[in-house]
Amino acid sequence: MNEPLDIAVLGAGSWGTTLAILLDQNRHRIRLWEYFPEQASRIAEARVNETFLPGVPIPASIQIGSDLQVALDGAELVLFVVPSHTIRPTARAAAATGRIDRKTIIVNAAKGLEEHTLLRLSQVLEAELPSEPANILSLIGPSHAEEVSQGIPTSVVAAGPDVEIAAQVQHVFKRPYFRVYTNDDVIGVEIGVALKNIIAIAAGVCDGLGYGDNTKAALLTRGLVEISRLGCALGARRETFFGLSGIGDLIATALSRHSRNRYVGERIGRGELLESVLKGMVMVAEGVRTTRAAVDLGEREGVELPIIESINEVLFHRKDPQAAINALMNRPLREEMW
Amino acid sequence: MNEPLDIAVLGAGSWGTTLAILLDQNRHRIRLWEYFPEQASRIAEARVNETFLPGVPIPASIQIGSDLQVALDGAELVLFVVPSHTIRPTARAAAATGRIDRKTIIVNAAKGLEEHTLLRLSQVLEAELPSEPANILSLIGPSHAEEVSQGIPTSVVAAGPDVEIAAQVQHVFKRPYFRVYTNDDVIGVEIGVALKNIIAIAAGVCDGLGYGDNTKAALLTRGLVEISRLGCALGARRETFFGLSGIGDLIATALSRHSRNRYVGERIGRGELLESVLKGMVMVAEGVRTTRAAVDLGEREGVELPIIESINEVLFHRKDPQAAINALMNRPLREEMW
Repeated sequence: MNEPLDIAVLGAGSWGTTLAILLDQNRHRIRLWEYFPEQASRIAEARVNETFLPGVPIPASIQIGSDLQVALDGAELVLFVVPSHTIRPTARAAAATGRIDRKTIIVNAAKGLEEHTLLRLSQVLEAELPSEPANILSLIGPSHAEEVSQGIPTSVVAAGPDVEIAAQVQHVFKRPYFRVYTNDDVIGVEIGVALKNIIAIAAGVCDGLGYGDNTKAALLTRGLVEISRLGCALGARRETFFGLSGIGDLIATALSRHSRNRYVGERIGRGELLESVLKGMVMVAEGVRTTRAAVDLGEREGVELPIIESINEVLFHRKDPQAAINALMNRPLREEMW
Repeated sequence: MNEPLDIAVLGAGSWGTTLAILLDQNRHRIRLWEYFPEQASRIAEARVNETFLPGVPIPASIQIGSDLQVALDGAELVLFVVPSHTIRPTARAAAATGRIDRKTIIVNAAKGLEEHTLLRLSQVLEAELPSEPANILSLIGPSHAEEVSQGIPTSVVAAGPDVEIAAQVQHVFKRPYFRVYTNDDVIGVEIGVALKNIIAIAAGVCDGLGYGDNTKAALLTRGLVEISRLGCALGARRETFFGLSGIGDLIATALSRHSRNRYVGERIGRGELLESVLKGMVMVAEGVRTTRAAVDLGEREGVELPIIESINEVLFHRKDPQAAINALMNRPLREEMW
């Protein structure tokens, strides 16, 4: 149906590797770029990403390397799947190769906010790359790489300001097991997926405290209200938070055994300190960084964020997790509000 | 803070027993009514409900019996916690005692729709009882009895057309571990909690098929869209579906090891037939009955309900569960819509 495209996938973590394989199944020509040369060689030789996606073979048709210039040469679509704090330097390096022009389609698949600037990730890409804003999108939703790589049915959202370009991206990525919706509310989609990681930490804290489904369900529900409030203040549409990038991603993250954010929260709930939890982790728990950024955003926008602020206190100021949850339960009662 | 009330709790299942104990902790005078005299005597003697809430002691201050007249005598508030299909006969019998007048506050804590009439449960109570409509409320939310009875933090909604009466009910029930919000969108609250049981069955089907969090998150998200669409057609406010009685209850039900609806779905997903699954169950899986009612409601209101209709096919027309889920994944792609 589609013409095969030249696609550069930047970042060979579990999600980048998974999407590279999926795009290869759709007959696109894929170059998978990995920052660390040694890791790139290891994956290229073994034809499997033992560190991040063990057991899933990588087809020979996918080129793997750590030379950004080679990866981007002739790329019609560039997919960014790097940790959120490396997206700016990666974009800057990509721009410096001269291989990206205003027509290159850029798809961000990372979730988070940039610390200090408090920018969404597509805003960071817009600032660093020559691509036209209409050509910069995010592909996002409840999609654990471990499951997508096994062909388990998954639905995500392609979010961009131009509906037609979003529809193109939709067709580039869709597979029988990978359903892609479109949405032009980029702010809502990106804020939802960034901030839900904080609520996932809160859900993990409940698990660690031995609390059950009731507490978690209430926290997730009220957490989503907080996220949507902040998002609307930033210009998002409220209903976006009730879609795949909002509730959907929140559910998948907050209740999953795969979720690193939930797991960080669980260990904190059991009484460990953040430093010791993070020390033992290979992969990044984006929510830890996002918490600080969200608190700053809430202050800047004048939006009350009781759950997110509590998690901030627990993570960075050693507030007792049980006291934090109980305090949230005992705020003055009122109508169910938005 | 509050004057103690005379309260009749009708139904000594796990949730009725739990709420009776909670109201007793709030110093109200409680009579707990159970339909089966033998079961009532057993509970009254053992001071524990071994069938439905084992291990939780029932204080001596709670009167237990199966005489409806005695239970209702002087009751200022009557709490209905019976299975949805027995709510009409129970209300009719209650009205016949002559112990309920227009000022009696009626609180429904059951979830479901009446089959054939397709009425919400507060509508059934309104039809059968002399209480003024403003005095008929629902108390509902993500609240597994097993957890509330252990004092695990829980949040629910008191929904009624009159905000002041809802606020009274809020104060009757609230405990440090039991947070009660109010909401005047009774339609939205009751439709949300009734229909989410169907989506919980769908989530269970995913589990039974060995699908993971991605599929479940997508189904829950899109399922909630269906529920809200139908609810809005019936006069509900959309945001109610994103509150405790909507998302909240859906999360608690669809992902919980306690949920009977999810469990029914799981066994169906593994290839069992509905009859054999239901045969072995002591407690009621409300979602099975609600599925038929929801399909009828959708037809009456002209609202498309693809997930609910698929579950109806799987439950009652032996449609293959995997084929049903895959068909849902492969419907024509479009924008993320409401």
